[in-house]
Amino acid sequence: MRALVYRGNGELALEDRPVPVLRDEKDAIVEVTLTTICSSDIHIRRGAVPRAVPGTILGHEFVGRVVQIGNAVKKVKPGDRVAVNVETFCGECFFCRRGYVNNCTDAHGGWALGCRIDGGQAEYVRIPFADNGLTVIPDSVTDEQALFVGDILSTGFWAARIGEISPADTVAVIGAGPTGLCTMLCARLYTPARIIAVDTDEFRLNLALARGLADVGLVPGRDDIEGAIRKLTQGRGADTVLEVAGGADTFQTAWKIARPNAVVVVVAMYEEAQPLPLPEMYGKNLIFKTGGVDGCYCQEIMDLIACGKLNTDFLITHRCGLDQILDAYEIFEKKKDHVIKFAVRP
Amino acid sequence: MRALVYRGNGELALEDRPVPVLRDEKDAIVEVTLTTICSSDIHIRRGAVPRAVPGTILGHEFVGRVVQIGNAVKKVKPGDRVAVNVETFCGECFFCRRGYVNNCTDAHGGWALGCRIDGGQAEYVRIPFADNGLTVIPDSVTDEQALFVGDILSTGFWAARIGEISPADTVAVIGAGPTGLCTMLCARLYTPARIIAVDTDEFRLNLALARGLADVGLVPGRDDIEGAIRKLTQGRGADTVLEVAGGADTFQTAWKIARPNAVVVVVAMYEEAQPLPLPEMYGKNLIFKTGGVDGCYCQEIMDLIACGKLNTDFLITHRCGLDQILDAYEIFEKKKDHVIKFAVRP
Amino acid sequence: MRALVYRGNGELALEDRPVPVLRDEKDAIVEVTLTTICSSDIHIRRGAVPRAVPGTILGHEFVGRVVQIGNAVKKVKPGDRVAVNVETFCGECFFCRRGYVNNCTDAHGGWALGCRIDGGQAEYVRIPFADNGLTVIPDSVTDEQALFVGDILSTGFWAARIGEISPADTVAVIGAGPTGLCTMLCARLYTPARIIAVDTDEFRLNLALARGLADVGLVPGRDDIEGAIRKLTQGRGADTVLEVAGGADTFQTAWKIARPNAVVVVVAMYEEAQPLPLPEMYGKNLIFKTGGVDGCYCQEIMDLIACGKLNTDFLITHRCGLDQILDAYEIFEKKKDHVIKFAVRP
Amino acid sequence: MRALVYRGNGELALEDRPVPVLRDEKDAIVEVTLTTICSSDIHIRRGAVPRAVPGTILGHEFVGRVVQIGNAVKKVKPGDRVAVNVETFCGECFFCRRGYVNNCTDAHGGWALGCRIDGGQAEYVRIPFADNGLTVIPDSVTDEQALFVGDILSTGFWAARIGEISPADTVAVIGAGPTGLCTMLCARLYTPARIIAVDTDEFRLNLALARGLADVGLVPGRDDIEGAIRKLTQGRGADTVLEVAGGADTFQTAWKIARPNAVVVVVAMYEEAQPLPLPEMYGKNLIFKTGGVDGCYCQEIMDLIACGKLNTDFLITHRCGLDQILDAYEIFEKKKDHVIKFAVRP
Repeated sequence: MRALVYRGNGELALEDRPVPVLRDEKDAIVEVTLTTICSSDIHIRRGAVPRAVPGTILGHEFVGRVVQIGNAVKKVKPGDRVAVNVETFCGECFFCRRGYVNNCTDAHGGWALGCRIDGGQAEYVRIPFADNGLTVIPDSVTDEQALFVGDILSTGFWAARIGEISPADTVAVIGAGPTGLCTMLCARLYTPARIIAVDTDEFRLNLALARGLADVGLVPGRDDIEGAIRKLTQGRGADTVLEVAGGADTFQTAWKIARPNAVVVVVAMYEEAQPLPLPEMYGKNLIFKTGGVDGCYCQEIMDLIACGKLNTDFLITHRCGLDQILDAYEIFEKKKDHVIKFAVRP
Repeated sequence: MRALVYRGNGELALEDRPVPVLRDEKDAIVEVTLTTICSSDIHIRRGAVPRAVPGTILGHEFVGRVVQIGNAVKKVKPGDRVAVNVETFCGECFFCRRGYVNNCTDAHGGWALGCRIDGGQAEYVRIPFADNGLTVIPDSVTDEQALFVGDILSTGFWAARIGEISPADTVAVIGAGPTGLCTMLCARLYTPARIIAVDTDEFRLNLALARGLADVGLVPGRDDIEGAIRKLTQGRGADTVLEVAGGADTFQTAWKIARPNAVVVVVAMYEEAQPLPLPEMYGKNLIFKTGGVDGCYCQEIMDLIACGKLNTDFLITHRCGLDQILDAYEIFEKKKDHVIKFAVRP
Repeated sequence: MRALVYRGNGELALEDRPVPVLRDEKDAIVEVTLTTICSSDIHIRRGAVPRAVPGTILGHEFVGRVVQIGNAVKKVKPGDRVAVNVETFCGECFFCRRGYVNNCTDAHGGWALGCRIDGGQAEYVRIPFADNGLTVIPDSVTDEQALFVGDILSTGFWAARIGEISPADTVAVIGAGPTGLCTMLCARLYTPARIIAVDTDEFRLNLALARGLADVGLVPGRDDIEGAIRKLTQGRGADTVLEVAGGADTFQTAWKIARPNAVVVVVAMYEEAQPLPLPEMYGKNLIFKTGGVDGCYCQEIMDLIACGKLNTDFLITHRCGLDQILDAYEIFEKKKDHVIKFAVRP
Repeated sequence: MRALVYRGNGELALEDRPVPVLRDEKDAIVEVTLTTICSSDIHIRRGAVPRAVPGTILGHEFVGRVVQIGNAVKKVKPGDRVAVNVETFCGECFFCRRGYVNNCTDAHGGWALGCRIDGGQAEYVRIPFADNGLTVIPDSVTDEQALFVGDILSTGFWAARIGEISPADTVAVIGAGPTGLCTMLCARLYTPARIIAVDTDEFRLNLALARGLADVGLVPGRDDIEGAIRKLTQGRGADTVLEVAGGADTFQTAWKIARPNAVVVVVAMYEEAQPLPLPEMYGKNLIFKTGGVDGCYCQEIMDLIACGKLNTDFLITHRCGLDQILDAYEIFEKKKDHVIKFAVRP
């Protein structure tokens, strides 16, 4: 089968690989019907993800059809259309039992797909712990609608949930890239009075506003970010800040625009340490939540899509076949042509 | 001034009363610009509210304009348009500090207006603890939009909040009267996958469906309530049940349609004790939350109305002057003419 | 092997039964080293537990040694000393994933041992879902110390946890039987200012006071329960009430001694429905939590025993062999000879 | 009266000052009966607290007797013995209503005493918002027992509370100075399985162990801190880390010894920004809580002392009169003579 392989040192290549087979009774083999490129793939290509193993097939955000299951798999069966979770997890360890599946202590636990084990930018893929990592797609939901359930929608859902948003709050989301947009979409589930989107990319900001994902758009440089947010909040600042940009400047902006006692969720994957100016923020009593998605809410996300409460149809702006995926990487990384996300057919 | 007075024994009468004056430095005098009738008024008229004092001017749901304030009042000033909270509370006692304002231990704490002290079915009213009980109405919000902030919207907001609703949950609301409809509206703030409305009044159910307050409408007798809800929830039952009907049958329905470990909020004011069949529900591990609204979220509700996130314009179906209020009581109590709520101009 | 069998209709008998064998790869066979009698056994004997199946070996509270494990068992191995959980649960279903293991949807989920499947008043017992239902006993903990981990200590731990106790609170525990005493012990983990024990049995109350489980003991009839509790709480009532007695009178006492907005946990297994006087308690905004233990905190309980933070050595007052167990039932049921709990050696 | 005044630039001096008088109807005048020196006073003396105003009488941790109250004061009366809260707060603003009293928006809100307004290292002191800032000392509690309620005990109580400690957890407290010891004492209220104290001062560590405040003592340099904690926690790390030391090294230790998804409370007042190594901790999903005490739990702390559940009698190691307070500063700052805290009689 055709597959996109990470060769190390920033090199990617389409290769012919054998179709994967079951190795454990909890595995399933999934025929990939639609896959996509994530910014984490770009991080891998840049060599910024030390855990990524050269020789691995990339891809951790995709949907497909179950073709084979191990003896211990109970929740899915061959023929089922499924969304695949970015994380594989055992469901039984100390962390999984508490919902912290990103820290599953199994050798294959956490983010492994397309990073440490072969992923879904390929025709077929083996999914460990299939009962935990696959979510059946109802007939009423298309592959395109379900494509992002396992990764960027899970991330937005997780960030909004740990952001402790209450109705009528003010939420600031820094970064209007694909994950930032999903984060706004999921923050909306808690009905804040307003979502303020911050980004330098005015096209993406306008998209967020036009699609109702955000109520206010602010551009660093053009706008006085801190002043504008204080104006909207009786001088207090945002009740919750979700930082999905990953820059040194945006990290500092994040805590400055937060009101005292706010939750600041650091959603972005940072490539460098950031200074935490404790004396300057002393007495502001901020809560910082860091880390990566705990992807154990795929069923909830799928249900919300199925019942029309999460509309993700603005995400796919580009489509291609697996043979064009290297071009797609180029367009996606450089944000050419107003791309948001690709849908890639294997 | 003209005022509707509760004379005891089910008798109400329009009387001429002196305009109220400040008695405490925390009081404000409010000119009532729009008032309404609540089902609790009907309970009082029926003699089912023992705490109601004969001779009291009725009315605990209204908006107005501040005309005078005591020396200690800081948050409102003469001229401000305000929504009035059903509850007056000190803000300082053991219960107020924990947000349990319904149990304020002050002599005037809890539900006093229009019950134990003169209320707002009149031209003017004195409001104790004005800083806690008045919420300024922004220019962009009309009196009609703000009329229900202090009581039935507060009740719906409270019920939904303590109902512990998460995104994608299934919520059942029993009762589609004015408070039930507000409860659905507020449950929606947490984006459950579906709200199931249950009522014998098909007109009101259809209104709930047509206005997007509910996704499914069920009629006892016509539908198999428990079966239909199990079908929608993989056999489990509703994640949250909000009981806003107050009947012996609806109390039993409430716990039966709840899934194990659900929260059942008893929002309705019951006139009789109900049997709690502990052996029958043993092991279902249900949580029952009982009582009356803690009305300390008026600012949040007002903000949501102002920013377009709470649309209440379906509530007012009838309008009249204070002189016609006795007729309005008749129509409201008997649910004639598809009435939902009256807007009464003093 | 010798085993105590429930024959239906209130009849129990010691019988010879074959040693159990593995039936599923998640099973373990445990040699029982110490077992005990629980008040639920008395309920079964009285015919008050409809789910109890005649012909079943009784016993759901015991410790032992693993002698054989199925292929899928990973957390215990032959030779391990283990405490056994009253509940068997799959760990994977909707309810198990949320910690509501009492409502596990598996056919063997929830309370099955000694009720629907053979239990531990025998020499050997088969434990389904062994990885979830067995907790290894550290060398420093004796069998007698660990005997109650799986049932009455789990129940006390669960009740105290859902009781939402904060430091400095006032907690009332109604019922000073074995489960009531364990509930006090576990309520103490949250350091309330005071635990008030209520029981008609002055011997047990005095034990609770002497062992530091309670700070105040009240006897219905002898003391003005409600008045005494109000006196200790500036007139408010208890912050948390844990009802472990199961009587019609104690149910009413429970909500009356609770302060407004308190949590009332109905821990006892009731044999009859109780009236819930909603009009009388209206506005008190009480939260009732009902049901049976979710036994998924055995590891925490074992750790607390091992590190000396839970001292249970007052529980065992009587010891005998399995051959004397019918006499032990008699003494335990009639509370003769100041019995608290038996330790029975098979 | 005699008072210790901060003259700016690290200079302190005993001066004669007029006895303070009421300025607002919510004020009280308190005769100081016992006062103490806090590490924040040392920070002020070093010029590391920019908000400290030269000319201010120092002291924010003391007890006394009410001698005069303003007209609006209701909860205390002349003659009452009182503990004084480090923070003065209005109780009415956005933040106070949510319990975030450290961020009270009143001009006198937050930490003002002994910093921006005259404090309690003097014979008399004026307390704004007396109803919120004074806690009556019961007869059974001595001045020495109550001396630390308003500051370091409040800090320990706050830190332990936001640390989200559950029974059987492992808690690490870095820093065994006076506040660190109080933090251990308050962490104990939640009955973790073990408290691990970390400090370079072996005398203080031994005190913590001898007094039962900690179960394990670790010394950087002498012990492998991270290794020892992993050994005690099946390799995971501490469930909660409370950082009360304030050093660059201890900040890094704090997150390293935390298990994934732990809460790390930064209790210490840092004098410099610290690097937050996001890439290194990526995926560990840590929660950092920063800031200063919200001192609104003094009643709870006093109740726990009164009922014998908080024993603070190890704190006072030195006693002197106000005339010797400059010597006391010297001893306290340099940690001479195994000092923990001074009790200073005005």
